Amino acid sequence: MPTEFELIARYFARPAPQALLGVGDDAALFRPSCGMALAVSADMLVMGTHFFPETDPRALGHKALAVNLSDMAAMGASPRWVLLSLALPGVDTRWLRRFAGGFFALARRHRVDLVGGDTTRGPLNLSVTILGEVPPHASLRRDAARPGDDVWVSGMLGDAALGVAHGKGRVTLAEGELVRCMRRLERPNPRIELGIALRGVAHAAIDISDGLAADLGHICERSRLGADVYVAQVPRSPLVARLADRRLAHEVLLAGGDDYELCFTAPVRGRGRVQALGKRLGLPLTRIGTMRRGRGVRLLNADGDAVRIGRHGFDHFG
Amino acid sequence: MPTEFELIARYFARPAPQALLGVGDDAALFRPSCGMALAVSADMLVMGTHFFPETDPRALGHKALAVNLSDMAAMGASPRWVLLSLALPGVDTRWLRRFAGGFFALARRHRVDLVGGDTTRGPLNLSVTILGEVPPHASLRRDAARPGDDVWVSGMLGDAALGVAHGKGRVTLAEGELVRCMRRLERPNPRIELGIALRGVAHAAIDISDGLAADLGHICERSRLGADVYVAQVPRSPLVARLADRRLAHEVLLAGGDDYELCFTAPVRGRGRVQALGKRLGLPLTRIGTMRRGRGVRLLNADGDAVRIGRHGFDHFG
Repeated sequence: MPTEFELIARYFARPAPQALLGVGDDAALFRPSCGMALAVSADMLVMGTHFFPETDPRALGHKALAVNLSDMAAMGASPRWVLLSLALPGVDTRWLRRFAGGFFALARRHRVDLVGGDTTRGPLNLSVTILGEVPPHASLRRDAARPGDDVWVSGMLGDAALGVAHGKGRVTLAEGELVRCMRRLERPNPRIELGIALRGVAHAAIDISDGLAADLGHICERSRLGADVYVAQVPRSPLVARLADRRLAHEVLLAGGDDYELCFTAPVRGRGRVQALGKRLGLPLTRIGTMRRGRGVRLLNADGDAVRIGRHGFDHFG
Repeated sequence: MPTEFELIARYFARPAPQALLGVGDDAALFRPSCGMALAVSADMLVMGTHFFPETDPRALGHKALAVNLSDMAAMGASPRWVLLSLALPGVDTRWLRRFAGGFFALARRHRVDLVGGDTTRGPLNLSVTILGEVPPHASLRRDAARPGDDVWVSGMLGDAALGVAHGKGRVTLAEGELVRCMRRLERPNPRIELGIALRGVAHAAIDISDGLAADLGHICERSRLGADVYVAQVPRSPLVARLADRRLAHEVLLAGGDDYELCFTAPVRGRGRVQALGKRLGLPLTRIGTMRRGRGVRLLNADGDAVRIGRHGFDHFG
C-alpha cells in the first residue's frame, strides 16, 4: 500500500511554475505581485453533506476547485495558487487518479498551481484554500453596493437545484434533462473572466451558492441596504421555465444553490458597459432588480406583489 | 439553534487589523509586504486520527493553530494570516466557545489574524491554512542542507510520544509526569522566534512532527544527502532519560512525533552564532550530528554502531 508521501508524489505533486517552492516542504513559497491585494478563500466539501459516495470522483475533483474559483470570481480576483487537504477513509488509487484528473483539468484551464495541502486518514473531506490577486481598489466586495445600483445576474438559474429536486423525488426529469441538470450541479463553470472584467464596472458581487435570495441578502446586509428583485426578469433555464409546479419553479430559481453564477450590482450609468461585456464574453447578463435604502430582499411579481418561497437558502445548521 | 452565519459571527469573527477585509465576504483581502515571499501551509486534524472525542476543546483549538505555526517556524517565516475550516457533527456552543478560546489565545500571542474559512456539517474535522512572510533568500527549505553541515535540534525530545505510549499502555507514568507529557502533546509551543532568528544562520530546517529520524530523513531526501545522528547527543527530557525500557526510550526519542521542535542544519563556522541564539532565546539548541554525502539517516550509538528503532515515523497510510 502506498504511503502518504508516495500518494502525494504520485497524484498531487505537479510542477508549480508560479511558485518559488511547491508541494514537498513545510510550506509553499511564492512571490505575490507588488501592489496587488491577495484574495484568499477556503471551502470544505464533506461526503454526505455536499456529495454522495457514488459521485463521480472526476466531477468531485472539478467541483472542489470550482467552488473556490467561484469565490475568486466573486471578488474580481485572478486565481493563482491553491492548497488541497484531503481526509481519505483509505487508499483507492482509481478514485484518487480520477479525482486528481478532474481537479487538475480545471486548474490548468485557469492556470492555477497546486502548491500544498495535507493528506490524512479520516471520513472523506475535501478542504481547498485558494489564493488570487486583485487590485485593492477594484475588488468586488459585498459591502460596496450603493442605493440605486442595478442588480445583475449572469447566466441562467435553476438547473443545478432542479437536479437536486429530481434526486429528492420532487420532480421527474427526462434522461437528457437530468444529464443537463447534473452537469450544472456537478461541474459548475466558475465565472472567472466575468469577475475580472467587472473590476471598475461593478460595485458589489457574490457568487450564487446558497440561492439568489439568500446571496443577494448577504450583499444587502453587508452594504446596509435593501434590494427589489423582479422575479419575472430572473433568467431561468428552459427546463425551469417549462415546470408545471410554479412553487418548485420559484424555489429552484430563487432559493436554489449550486449554480455558481455571479450576482452583482452596478451603477445605472454603467448599463451599456455591462451589456457590452456580456456580449464580449458570450454570457447572458440580465438586470433583475434595484438596490434601495432599507433592509432585506423583496421578491416581486409583475404586479408588484411579494413572491413567497419556502426557504431562502441553504444553511448547514438551520 | 444558531445558523451557520450566526456561529461564524459569534465565535470566529474577530477584528483582523492586518487585513483589508476579514471574515464575511467571498474571500479575505490583505496586502502582502512587497519583496517578501509568502509562505503558505495547510494541516488537517481529524477526530479519531489526530485526537479523541474527549480531548479538551481548548487544547484542540491551540493545537490546530500550533501545528500550522510550527510549519511557519520551519520555513523561517513570520506568521500573519490564518483560515480555519470546520466540519462539525452538530452545534455544541460550549465546545465551540472553548475551541475558539484556545485558538485565539495562541493567535493573539503570535499576532496572527483569522481572516476566513468555512463551517459545515460533517464528522469533526479541523482544517487550517496559514500564511506568513519570509525574505525569499532567507527561507529555511528542506532542500538547502549542505555536506558537512551540523545537524541541530531545539528543546528536548520524547515527552509528547511518551504521553501517547502511556495512552497505549506501553508505559505507566505517574500523574505529574503524565500531565507534563500531555501538555507537550496537546499544547505544543511552536518555535516561531527560533525560526525567524535562524534566517541567514541555518541552511535547512523542518519541524519534528513525524519523529526525528523521519523528519531529518525528509531533509536528506530533498537535499540529496545523508545524515549521521549521534543518539547519545540527542537532547531528551528527564522522563525519557529515566526510562528503564531502552527500546521504548529510543523509539519516543527518535521516532516519536508531536514534539514540534525544530531540526535544522547550519555550517560548522556558524556554531557560535547558533549557540548565542539559543542563549538569547532561553531555548536549548543541541548539535546532534552531521550532514554527509550519501543517502539516508544513520542513527549511531557511542561506539559508532547502528541504533535500531521499530519504526521511523508516522504514516497515515503505511
